[in-house]
Amino acid sequence: MRAVDIIIKKRDGGTLTAQEIDFFVRGFTNGEIPDYQASAFAMAVLLNGMTNFETTDLTLSMARSGSTLDLSKVVDLAVDKHSSGGVGDKTSIAVMPMVAACGLAVGKMSGRGLGFSGGTLDKLESIPGYRVDLTTDEFLEQLKEKGIVLTGQSLDLAPADGKLYALRDVTGTVPSMPLIASSIMCKKIAAGAQAIVLDVKVGRGAFMQTLEEGRELAELMVDIGRLAGRKTVALLSDMNQPLGSAVGNALEVIESIETLRGRGPADFVEHCLHVAAHVLVLGRRASDLDEGRSLARKSIADGSALEKLRILVAAQGGDASYVDDVSRFKRAKFREEIKTPRSGFVSQVNARTVGEASVELGAGRAKKGDPINHAVGFLIYKKVGDEVREGETLCEVHADDAEKLQKAREAVLSAYQIGDEPVPPLPLFYE
Amino acid sequence: MRAVDIIIKKRDGGTLTAQEIDFFVRGFTNGEIPDYQASAFAMAVLLNGMTNFETTDLTLSMARSGSTLDLSKVVDLAVDKHSSGGVGDKTSIAVMPMVAACGLAVGKMSGRGLGFSGGTLDKLESIPGYRVDLTTDEFLEQLKEKGIVLTGQSLDLAPADGKLYALRDVTGTVPSMPLIASSIMCKKIAAGAQAIVLDVKVGRGAFMQTLEEGRELAELMVDIGRLAGRKTVALLSDMNQPLGSAVGNALEVIESIETLRGRGPADFVEHCLHVAAHVLVLGRRASDLDEGRSLARKSIADGSALEKLRILVAAQGGDASYVDDVSRFKRAKFREEIKTPRSGFVSQVNARTVGEASVELGAGRAKKGDPINHAVGFLIYKKVGDEVREGETLCEVHADDAEKLQKAREAVLSAYQIGDEPVPPLPLFYE
Repeated sequence: MRAVDIIIKKRDGGTLTAQEIDFFVRGFTNGEIPDYQASAFAMAVLLNGMTNFETTDLTLSMARSGSTLDLSKVVDLAVDKHSSGGVGDKTSIAVMPMVAACGLAVGKMSGRGLGFSGGTLDKLESIPGYRVDLTTDEFLEQLKEKGIVLTGQSLDLAPADGKLYALRDVTGTVPSMPLIASSIMCKKIAAGAQAIVLDVKVGRGAFMQTLEEGRELAELMVDIGRLAGRKTVALLSDMNQPLGSAVGNALEVIESIETLRGRGPADFVEHCLHVAAHVLVLGRRASDLDEGRSLARKSIADGSALEKLRILVAAQGGDASYVDDVSRFKRAKFREEIKTPRSGFVSQVNARTVGEASVELGAGRAKKGDPINHAVGFLIYKKVGDEVREGETLCEVHADDAEKLQKAREAVLSAYQIGDEPVPPLPLFYE
Repeated sequence: MRAVDIIIKKRDGGTLTAQEIDFFVRGFTNGEIPDYQASAFAMAVLLNGMTNFETTDLTLSMARSGSTLDLSKVVDLAVDKHSSGGVGDKTSIAVMPMVAACGLAVGKMSGRGLGFSGGTLDKLESIPGYRVDLTTDEFLEQLKEKGIVLTGQSLDLAPADGKLYALRDVTGTVPSMPLIASSIMCKKIAAGAQAIVLDVKVGRGAFMQTLEEGRELAELMVDIGRLAGRKTVALLSDMNQPLGSAVGNALEVIESIETLRGRGPADFVEHCLHVAAHVLVLGRRASDLDEGRSLARKSIADGSALEKLRILVAAQGGDASYVDDVSRFKRAKFREEIKTPRSGFVSQVNARTVGEASVELGAGRAKKGDPINHAVGFLIYKKVGDEVREGETLCEVHADDAEKLQKAREAVLSAYQIGDEPVPPLPLFYE
């Protein structure tokens, strides 16, 4: 078998066999197939597509390209939850304690933020001491003993994916459904997931801009899951405006804690209950979504979810007193309320604009390895559909320097559109 | 400007500007744009195509990527002749002395053979002492003084093309009309050609397998020539069966010499007269093809073409006595006549099979840098349309070892198809 023949087959619109895909992925991972062949291959895949069988084979080959985690000795059924990323998406930090409190052990490896989209690890690190670098043994031990883990990748999971993604980024081969879907799914499978809840974000602040694209990606990933023997469900949720109120690391952790205390913003609470219900059904802790939702709601009401968060934070070396006293989180030097320039109805809070403004404030990274400021960010009070009267507060900027405060004020105001006509609120989920 | 944005534009079917193409070619040549970006670009071009304007811009950028030759001080009008390559194609060795004898100074940089297709330089080196490594000064001096040069590339002509071709070869991006056409034309333009006669070979023993492909390539190159301000004509000639009789280095030089003596095989003589007529018209030495053809014919009849070949060989250090006594060429140890296994009409002499068999014999290279044997090869006596009777000789194998002789015998027999029905001869030219 030769790499060039596999490229030619895909170039000519052919369907690759599992053996051919595996040969290519293994060769690329170990360096026998050079980058220039992989980028030509990626371009051929982008332009000619792949069948769902091919995409599944690619997913499984990439999942096998490095270490894999076997969770079967630690949990009955390993359930994972994945969000395609967005602005103000702190769902994992609230949902994982909820489902863990319902008796479903969950261990998750998360990522860091890049660009306008935040990352769970960065958020959690706003709690002093919280370790995101658990070893595999620590991961397994904690999952078994505490029933909850939220850390970074310790193992070299799916290295083919990391290598291919870096290459796609510089060769114009990112926006390919088969490549995006396999990239997400291979990491979940390598991390040992037997069942997967996918939260595909759609809208201005997501990688999928349109509902059609989001649906296509969701359906493809569910198909990959099915063909790979993993129970998979996908939700399509809105990311035209930020999720919940908080955007920024510590601010989002605080909002997650408030949510587990029953004091979260209505849209975020509803989002979490919906996701948690799906996770509980897939993890066989609830027989249907209604039961899942009611169990999740109960975990908030009886304090068991908050207790799971305390246990999680303490287990990973974090200062659990932050969970009980959110005033301990480091706050930004400047906090300014932004008033609406006019009365009317909010018709837009552009998530992308807010996300990019939060990067400018220092809450995110423009490029890999940039330091981040945990304290800064936004609190978005008024959302699409809300009526506002002149002088009312739209949102709050938290900044650590006066110049950035000024820029952030302008940026967040430009994210808002306020009109005269009433506007229906945005749906949380599309399907 | 960023390379990735240029790739993305082409990926999405956009039309690149001259500036974008030049940025990409310059960056790739000097190493700032890595191979993996160039291969993704090449795949996007292959699958999405290029307009003739883009292809011309690519041609000119590649032509400018290294040294260029200015022949305007040495000749009135620099005419070049290019063949897309085939089996038994020794046309340059016969045609250049013919047109030079008609008063048109011609200097040509040729290449070596690779795969089933031979190379003019390899053929000429079967004359002891013949130098194919003239310096640029020697090239210009000889062109001025002798009116004929046939050597290899001394200058670093169009290095972008060489680099891109090597990459295309291993990334499945060879068969792209814009990339093939620009690759051929950029070298002609860098070598100083103001007028170009293109001999596009079509058929089993050519890179263009079908007449449609050949016509598309020919039209594209003529368009590039026109847009780049070079007078260009293209001929479409047959390469289903070998051209002429001889296949193999010394054998082909001998056939060229015989042709200049007026004793060449009819098809090859006719082919040369046609190409020479076009070169003479383009070079303003003949007012029309009829006059060109009659001048070329006269150069054979009066011995002036043979004299030009003597002058060429001597000027480049070769032993000119070989031109007058072809028995001096090194001959292979074994020479075997192959008889027809049956009576009938020759319906096929597969050029590709013969070309590959000649590589097996040692006359060509399987890969770059392989040594070659100048003496071995085939003499193909019976061609498509010929009637043969049992026991008649179809062809001759010249081999240097018994085992290879045996294999070559089988191979060349498999190239032949002989049927019961009369078959019309193949045309020499299609258009």
